[in-house]
Amino acid sequence: MTDLPASVEIREEGPREGFQIEPGPIPTDRKVALIQALAATGLRQIQVASFVSAKLVPGWADAEAVLGAIAPPPGVAFTALWFNAAGLSRALAFRDRLSLRGSISFAASEAFSRKNLNRDRAGQMEAMRALTAAHQAAGVAVTRIGIQAAFGCNYQSDIAPALAVQAVADGLAIAAEAGAAITEVTLADTMGWATPPRIARTVGAVRERWPELPLALHLHDTRGLGIANAAAGLGLGVARYDTTVGGLGGCPFAGQPGAPGNICTEELVLLCAEMGIATGIDLDALIAAGHLAEEVVGHRLPSALLRSGTLDAFRRRITAG
Amino acid sequence: MTDLPASVEIREEGPREGFQIEPGPIPTDRKVALIQALAATGLRQIQVASFVSAKLVPGWADAEAVLGAIAPPPGVAFTALWFNAAGLSRALAFRDRLSLRGSISFAASEAFSRKNLNRDRAGQMEAMRALTAAHQAAGVAVTRIGIQAAFGCNYQSDIAPALAVQAVADGLAIAAEAGAAITEVTLADTMGWATPPRIARTVGAVRERWPELPLALHLHDTRGLGIANAAAGLGLGVARYDTTVGGLGGCPFAGQPGAPGNICTEELVLLCAEMGIATGIDLDALIAAGHLAEEVVGHRLPSALLRSGTLDAFRRRITAG
Repeated sequence: MTDLPASVEIREEGPREGFQIEPGPIPTDRKVALIQALAATGLRQIQVASFVSAKLVPGWADAEAVLGAIAPPPGVAFTALWFNAAGLSRALAFRDRLSLRGSISFAASEAFSRKNLNRDRAGQMEAMRALTAAHQAAGVAVTRIGIQAAFGCNYQSDIAPALAVQAVADGLAIAAEAGAAITEVTLADTMGWATPPRIARTVGAVRERWPELPLALHLHDTRGLGIANAAAGLGLGVARYDTTVGGLGGCPFAGQPGAPGNICTEELVLLCAEMGIATGIDLDALIAAGHLAEEVVGHRLPSALLRSGTLDAFRRRITAG
Repeated sequence: MTDLPASVEIREEGPREGFQIEPGPIPTDRKVALIQALAATGLRQIQVASFVSAKLVPGWADAEAVLGAIAPPPGVAFTALWFNAAGLSRALAFRDRLSLRGSISFAASEAFSRKNLNRDRAGQMEAMRALTAAHQAAGVAVTRIGIQAAFGCNYQSDIAPALAVQAVADGLAIAAEAGAAITEVTLADTMGWATPPRIARTVGAVRERWPELPLALHLHDTRGLGIANAAAGLGLGVARYDTTVGGLGGCPFAGQPGAPGNICTEELVLLCAEMGIATGIDLDALIAAGHLAEEVVGHRLPSALLRSGTLDAFRRRITAG
């Protein structure tokens, strides 16, 4: 625990992940209300929409309507997700209110890439070259590499650290060709294969090769180990995490119906706060936003902390009593 | 992670914790079926009943009927819980099938002791002296000290490691007076205040004073940090854990209605297996027992792993496919 970061950046992805997977329909104004509540918690980055096919993801058919109704307060960046040039062009219509940056995305598992995108490694490199060119033509800087299935894969089993390193190298090669300056690599545990030692090995392998490259973790709680993996990341000094309030979202992958999705924002904020790591987030406000998220989706979310409340609430009660 | 134990002892408390807190009524034969399923998983210790007031805990009014219907298979120890001489005498009726051992129990928080037991420290010492004498009179060895609220308390706030150390010292003093040889101290995070660094500090403080005394952790997942705390314990070499299948049970304490109870047995078994730590437990059989537990109580349990399945299941499928 000697490498703990002094502060961490926690990026909220609940709206994007949640509304994508909830059966819905959820009225646009309820989505807007949740985003506005989250934007008032101290979170500095919130992924607010997904520009994907309305046929494949009906929950985000109203992405334009949501974006039309929100603007980020000062100090907050709203981000969005897209996978291709069509999505990018929809996002560009909101460049006045979205923080746009381009990502180069690879799966460390080729089986996942084939299954999920119908592309082998060469095909994915081609697609990422084209997407990078589209970003740059639109004046959107390409700054991030995202590695899916970085720790394991339902279609390929365990993923050796060398495969994650290779995927990062592929992304950096494309960035170098295009003259893009990469400022972050996100390692995603897309299907819940990570454990604390695997986090240490893969983070270690990527760092050994690129010591100066900031890393982020995108962790899923598929098998209940998500927060232990985040704690391992903190212990290694990893200072950027993607999370979802209440654990919004879920797992769309084979053989895991009903499994949880991302780790809960509020549980990571609590862990950081109790470990003396700054997040800038008001945990009470965040928990209130989590309760609102449960109202919006109409059911309980996986978060334990939404049930139990913060330790500070007890500390205050005891001091007052 | 350099102090990882080679193997751990995982003690299942799901039947006792679960049937105590579920609204019920649950038929005796369903309780028996779950205990029998658990006894076939490789678990070596299962807490199968609670000898408490049927008025206070109606879910265990049938403790005698359950005990009458079960016998531990070879290599499995069935244990039970009691808090006083009346409970002990009920347990003694089943000494042919129960592994009986006496515990000396203290809360590290005096506020918790007053609130929960209506006893101050002196009162609790007196009660534990009397209970120790009752155990010894019945030929039941007193071998364990249990420390509740060892990391924090809803009624007293944070608990300094020195208070946990003092509670252990009180227990050891009573044991020494009675000539009882203590072979384990269990530190319980009764109300979900632990974090990985707090686990490290309190375990460290107890070990510094009594380096030879084996420690166990009884962790609750009240705020979602339970498995991270268990991972911290493993990293410190702690090799004994109390858990409940599926996360059976819950949190009966103030201000936390609906919060989870103990950490899930199967998630800890998975974590250990993936870290190369032996448990002797068949994870597939344990997950099947977890699904049975959900049928028996009639609702979903908090476990994520019950939804997603093991990693070995995917490894086998990939190898076969």
